[in-house]
Amino acid sequence: MVNSIHPARGTSAADLADAALTQAVIDSFDGSRSARFAEIMRSLVRHLHAFISEVELTEDEWFAGIDFLTRTGHITNDQRQEWVLLSDVLGVSMLVIGLNNRKPPEATESTVFGPFFVEGSPHVELGGDLARGAVGRPCYMSGRVVGVDGTPVPGARVEVWQSDDDGFYDVQYDGLDHMQGRGHLFTDDDGGWRFWSVLPVAYPIPTDGPVGDLLAAAGRGPMRPAHVHFMVTADGYERLITHVFDGTDEHLHNDAVFGVRSSLIATFDHHEAGTEAPDGSTPDSGFSTLEFDLVLAPKVDTPAQS
Amino acid sequence: MVNSIHPARGTSAADLADAALTQAVIDSFDGSRSARFAEIMRSLVRHLHAFISEVELTEDEWFAGIDFLTRTGHITNDQRQEWVLLSDVLGVSMLVIGLNNRKPPEATESTVFGPFFVEGSPHVELGGDLARGAVGRPCYMSGRVVGVDGTPVPGARVEVWQSDDDGFYDVQYDGLDHMQGRGHLFTDDDGGWRFWSVLPVAYPIPTDGPVGDLLAAAGRGPMRPAHVHFMVTADGYERLITHVFDGTDEHLHNDAVFGVRSSLIATFDHHEAGTEAPDGSTPDSGFSTLEFDLVLAPKVDTPAQS
Repeated sequence: MVNSIHPARGTSAADLADAALTQAVIDSFDGSRSARFAEIMRSLVRHLHAFISEVELTEDEWFAGIDFLTRTGHITNDQRQEWVLLSDVLGVSMLVIGLNNRKPPEATESTVFGPFFVEGSPHVELGGDLARGAVGRPCYMSGRVVGVDGTPVPGARVEVWQSDDDGFYDVQYDGLDHMQGRGHLFTDDDGGWRFWSVLPVAYPIPTDGPVGDLLAAAGRGPMRPAHVHFMVTADGYERLITHVFDGTDEHLHNDAVFGVRSSLIATFDHHEAGTEAPDGSTPDSGFSTLEFDLVLAPKVDTPAQS
Repeated sequence: MVNSIHPARGTSAADLADAALTQAVIDSFDGSRSARFAEIMRSLVRHLHAFISEVELTEDEWFAGIDFLTRTGHITNDQRQEWVLLSDVLGVSMLVIGLNNRKPPEATESTVFGPFFVEGSPHVELGGDLARGAVGRPCYMSGRVVGVDGTPVPGARVEVWQSDDDGFYDVQYDGLDHMQGRGHLFTDDDGGWRFWSVLPVAYPIPTDGPVGDLLAAAGRGPMRPAHVHFMVTADGYERLITHVFDGTDEHLHNDAVFGVRSSLIATFDHHEAGTEAPDGSTPDSGFSTLEFDLVLAPKVDTPAQS
């Protein structure tokens, strides 16, 4: 056997012990086209390697990870975004929202966008019917869109979407030929908005994929507390994407996607049949009401990324 | 407007500022079925959140990340494993191998398994032809399988796989009806192994998918230095998965998958036509030779995971 084919170890740049390996991967992004891309990748590599080293990931666990990613990739299609769901249940979506929506304390806080927004929702007149066939207990929702100093914001576009009484959004029904439980309104001169819809209920996120397996392995529930989605856009203000939560929901403290902010918890009041509703009507069934102001932060110009 | 629907902030467990959010996600794994799963997920969440916070990931960048994961998921199929490739180019595969293959300094080091191993390779007699039609400069490879104390290991199974002169493995050719450039041998009483094959050449990892986009954005090359894969199994020894690299390759110091260990760099000797080969034959074309010992670590019983 020829000794020269066994060079001494630990002296060559090709020899990558763990710390040197991590540094070599970090350095491999030195020639990146974009400084921001390099910054993100270097940080990702450092934290990814730190995670793997910390838990001393076994080869079997690495294979299990590859299998999880493969299955998550394959269940994702135009109708279902398992990666967003994964981001949600790991608190990543909410973390990104928090980092990107620092605003004055008076402004309504942001929360997760969720997978059920649809472009091109129907226009609903103020005081009109946004349920459009969605089943559930009638609920009259109203409030104002204002700036942080209380100034009314007339003409703001208020997008609303929500589940029905069975916990489903319209897009979850196969073959439904119209949108329901969603719509958009424009605020009046006083910033006011109001519509009839149905009382939202708690519902589970989809559990028949890899993210469901992860929740099961963690002993975690899939439920989201009852909420209504709002997205508000108005000239001169930051876009607001948020929910209003039902303060009586048992899942407020274990939302599967960590989306609850206490400032977004509201009171739905419940009324018997024959009571006069805020719009002067007298519904012949029991109904609920919600009143909630949506407070917009002033627009900030962000400097361009390097 | 009713004040009671705007509770004071920062006092409720539902209120998740960034640090509290991360802790809430970590705590959500307290009910895990397996203590090891909980340990891995808590560490993953902590490092993932630290990465996102450190770079202050924007919402657009988060969307770009979701898009990258979606594309990586969709290009992966039974024939192509883009997740393994991603793990490789981020140095994750090599890190896991390093963590799981700590062994005596005399033992041959491990490196990445790669995507081109195939079960059921043909048996090749000692001194036989492993090229089986693979094109390239003839190369006679030989060595011994020994323990760290030099004890020969007879009957060891030596699996070999390699690219041809065009940089392709057999599985990369559509419609090829037989395996080539791969096979397995059993060592003789002296631990010896030997076969004819072809000289390996450097080749690029696949660049037509998201991982290729990542390398391009990083200004990184896709090349792997020329190498031959070996997997050695023998009773009483740890399985060895490794490569032997050509010491003259220009890509030794920028292997796209960080797989080079200096102890795995060997010398391929080159001979003119008419020279006598180590097996006593006199090839009528130029040929090369490699001699390399494969040193196995003794089997260690690992305790079962909790």
